[in-house]
Amino acid sequence: MQVAVIGANGGIGRRLLPLLDEAGHEVIGVVRSEEQFEQIQERGGLPRLGDLEGTFAPALEGAEAVVFTAGSGGGTGWDKTLMVDLWGARRAVDACEEQGIDRFVMVSARGAANPDAGYEPLRPYLVAKRCADDYLERSALAATILRPTTLTDEEGTGRVTTAFTPQDGGPDIPRADVAATVRACLDNDATIGRTIELYGGDTPVEEAVRPSN
Amino acid sequence: MQVAVIGANGGIGRRLLPLLDEAGHEVIGVVRSEEQFEQIQERGGLPRLGDLEGTFAPALEGAEAVVFTAGSGGGTGWDKTLMVDLWGARRAVDACEEQGIDRFVMVSARGAANPDAGYEPLRPYLVAKRCADDYLERSALAATILRPTTLTDEEGTGRVTTAFTPQDGGPDIPRADVAATVRACLDNDATIGRTIELYGGDTPVEEAVRPSN
Repeated sequence: MQVAVIGANGGIGRRLLPLLDEAGHEVIGVVRSEEQFEQIQERGGLPRLGDLEGTFAPALEGAEAVVFTAGSGGGTGWDKTLMVDLWGARRAVDACEEQGIDRFVMVSARGAANPDAGYEPLRPYLVAKRCADDYLERSALAATILRPTTLTDEEGTGRVTTAFTPQDGGPDIPRADVAATVRACLDNDATIGRTIELYGGDTPVEEAVRPSN
Repeated sequence: MQVAVIGANGGIGRRLLPLLDEAGHEVIGVVRSEEQFEQIQERGGLPRLGDLEGTFAPALEGAEAVVFTAGSGGGTGWDKTLMVDLWGARRAVDACEEQGIDRFVMVSARGAANPDAGYEPLRPYLVAKRCADDYLERSALAATILRPTTLTDEEGTGRVTTAFTPQDGGPDIPRADVAATVRACLDNDATIGRTIELYGGDTPVEEAVRPSN
């Protein structure tokens, strides 16, 4: 399957590209600058230019699935949260609908289900993620929404947990394991239509994303 | 009709209260601080405490219609745009659905239809307004969305225009005339389900909000 990764040079995107490549997918790595092309190629991806705040849709051409793992990041203002995490995600969903790309995996965030209950300084971010998730859910796309808890740069384990109470933050999760879960979702159509919280844990990702979990 | 005005002490809210009062409506003025109670009463409103970022729903109790004209304003950060203009509006819509309040008039902003085409520094605001409008549109409420262009504090004329091309900013509009249009919409059920752009103009507000215009 040809999969376009939006945010291919981010913490999760970087780890996702080789996983998709190894699993036999053709990977389009969407990045904002040609300077990042080499890194995308080294990770097994076909680099394409796409700017969530500018020209963007052509980068998805030919893709059969899209992964949204872009984020404005902690170092920019809340205006970028609105323009990238929320509006950019909506534009990505729109572009998929226009181009007939049916499959969409969204990397959201734990707490987006209930921003009012979130850690106060994070609430505006959770609002943006929630609104983007809602937009995707209400679209015609075959969507899976992943909501990982706090991310770390620890080595991946290939194992996660999806079952914690909303009140419990649960164990942090390595970005590598979020990437592995995205890959597992793309290879399992039973994840379509589902929103899955993700924590560090002991269940192999393929098993963890099965509907019984 | 009992009408709750969210943002009763804002530029449009302040002008709306006496108009609703004179038109025979009972007006609940929702404000964030008891210090504003006297001003609400002077304008013919029944003041109630409600904080869009905190406890809020009880302020709407008994209302048959809600006007949302709150805004975080230009003096606060984009985080407040997310928490008030977007999330607060969604919470207001949710509260109406929960309490069986059917009628909702949203004061949105011109340009929310297409934030990408808006004046760049305003785009994050237009994104927030657009997403709030979409949420309202997709709700079960009987909604009217007003999208006024640049607001002024000029004296009201009771006249507006709704017909300008999206590319044209059109004449600025006094806040008093936006307030008069809100009042006209509440008194005309033919405005339900409609999104109306508003500019300064020559058509009496009652006529301007008729579907033929």
